[in-house]
Amino acid sequence: MRCKKCKTKAVIGLPRHNAAFCKPCFNEFVHDQVLRAVKGDRMFTGQDRILVAVSGGKDSLALWHVLLTLGFRADGLYVDLGIPGYSAKSRERVERFAETVARPLNATLLVHTVTDQEGAGIRELADMVDRPTCSVCGTIKRYRFNRAAVEHDYDVMATGHNLDDEAARLLGNVLHWQEDYLEKQGPSLPASLEGFAKKVKPLYRLSEREIAAYAVLNKIDYIVEECPMAKGSKMLLYKEVLNRLETESPGTKQRFYWGFLDKQRAHSAPDSMAAKDQAALHPCAVCGQPTSAEICSFCKMMARAANLAHP
Amino acid sequence: MRCKKCKTKAVIGLPRHNAAFCKPCFNEFVHDQVLRAVKGDRMFTGQDRILVAVSGGKDSLALWHVLLTLGFRADGLYVDLGIPGYSAKSRERVERFAETVARPLNATLLVHTVTDQEGAGIRELADMVDRPTCSVCGTIKRYRFNRAAVEHDYDVMATGHNLDDEAARLLGNVLHWQEDYLEKQGPSLPASLEGFAKKVKPLYRLSEREIAAYAVLNKIDYIVEECPMAKGSKMLLYKEVLNRLETESPGTKQRFYWGFLDKQRAHSAPDSMAAKDQAALHPCAVCGQPTSAEICSFCKMMARAANLAHP
Repeated sequence: MRCKKCKTKAVIGLPRHNAAFCKPCFNEFVHDQVLRAVKGDRMFTGQDRILVAVSGGKDSLALWHVLLTLGFRADGLYVDLGIPGYSAKSRERVERFAETVARPLNATLLVHTVTDQEGAGIRELADMVDRPTCSVCGTIKRYRFNRAAVEHDYDVMATGHNLDDEAARLLGNVLHWQEDYLEKQGPSLPASLEGFAKKVKPLYRLSEREIAAYAVLNKIDYIVEECPMAKGSKMLLYKEVLNRLETESPGTKQRFYWGFLDKQRAHSAPDSMAAKDQAALHPCAVCGQPTSAEICSFCKMMARAANLAHP
Repeated sequence: MRCKKCKTKAVIGLPRHNAAFCKPCFNEFVHDQVLRAVKGDRMFTGQDRILVAVSGGKDSLALWHVLLTLGFRADGLYVDLGIPGYSAKSRERVERFAETVARPLNATLLVHTVTDQEGAGIRELADMVDRPTCSVCGTIKRYRFNRAAVEHDYDVMATGHNLDDEAARLLGNVLHWQEDYLEKQGPSLPASLEGFAKKVKPLYRLSEREIAAYAVLNKIDYIVEECPMAKGSKMLLYKEVLNRLETESPGTKQRFYWGFLDKQRAHSAPDSMAAKDQAALHPCAVCGQPTSAEICSFCKMMARAANLAHP
């Protein structure tokens, strides 16, 4: 197997692109895909301050690595969820990366510790409010990332969602014809109100396998285990099913998700969602963050947990 | 396991309906689902003459059986494709059913033999015109069924497509965002021009497994083997993937396909497709059947085969 570009020995084959690359040309391919996403979807420019949501997994650390390597102004935010036997390990990876890769490039790491700030780890919180752990985790992360981005004056918040994540989410939304969710499945969501940060997914053109290869080739030390809370999740099932289809027809995920984006771009006004949201949003009566209800879902959940802890 | 309706011993469990039935109540369930489809989608009435496309498989024979049992005026049409080792066996099943079940109810069977009329079996035709066998088969069957329905003055043509078939087709169309095909995925397509028969799929509310159970319980002798030409087809892959999802979440196929139909009914004018087709269609210069080209795809294919046979 020879590199498609320079004809030296290849280290990775990409069936969906009918190509293979050596390490330098593969890195260039990854950087190019990220830049295409960043420019094509007007995610941010070299002047913008970016806050990367890092978990310690391959996707978010690879994203931070790519953005720093390309010279963007990217800091990291890690939310320590207090999951026994998992959070400590993932935090270690993130702090080591921040120390060895980010700091020399003048990028910093912010850390939010759920056990300190919310008073308990997400498993206990989930038990207290009687909701699935992944749903409580989503509420806390969305809230904390957004609040940190707004309070520390970042222009945009970037997450490590890749092609597999987005295709799996799209499959779930299509199987249930969730039209509201379908509308928000783009890789770049504009800041819809002062108080809501712009959110982007610069890895949406790269598959999980490609990002894992990038992380390994560039010696990024990430946590390999899936979060123990995610076992049996619908997203993992959708990914498994899409991988089955991808094996039979390389390019299936890409055609599915990118085809959806093309269709979306053709049919809808680009900022209609932002306008619709703006009309529906106002500050939460408790914390001041934007919400469509009187009190935002984070504050509602925390009030419920507090009531149950000290009735 | 007890029957949900009459509490006697059940013979089949239906996870997606959270129900189980004994034989008589299951038959009633099947008949009820077919009647709901027939009435809800205005497929036909007791006065209409229906032509059922029968292949010898469980779906088409079960459909013919249900329609006759319910008292509809339903004849059958069998197209003998000339597939060695398969067509003879399937034809035998159809002729036996016609003899023992249909004839006593004054229903008849029409037979079209491809080897006689088109001059060769579909495998040879596919080789001659250098197209996949399943695509040649589709062209011939669509053409012959439609022509027979129109020439013998039937009001409507019914096929045995079930929920699994329609969900698999929808998945394929959604994975590729085939908007034109998506538009035509309803269970009832109006006659769009004189010369194009109305087409309906009365089994779209029943799964493959439910129809197989109906056939077995009612001693319908059908050909169990899949067509040997279909091995490795995309439709079988999509069905496999949907079965994986259905096992984890009973009701997935139904939510997916029925949800799509609800969305379609809400968004589009019911007869817009017919109107659009009418504008684009005119009689084929060779056979007079409706087509959007000068010569229809069947006549083009047959001309190509004839040229290659007698250059």
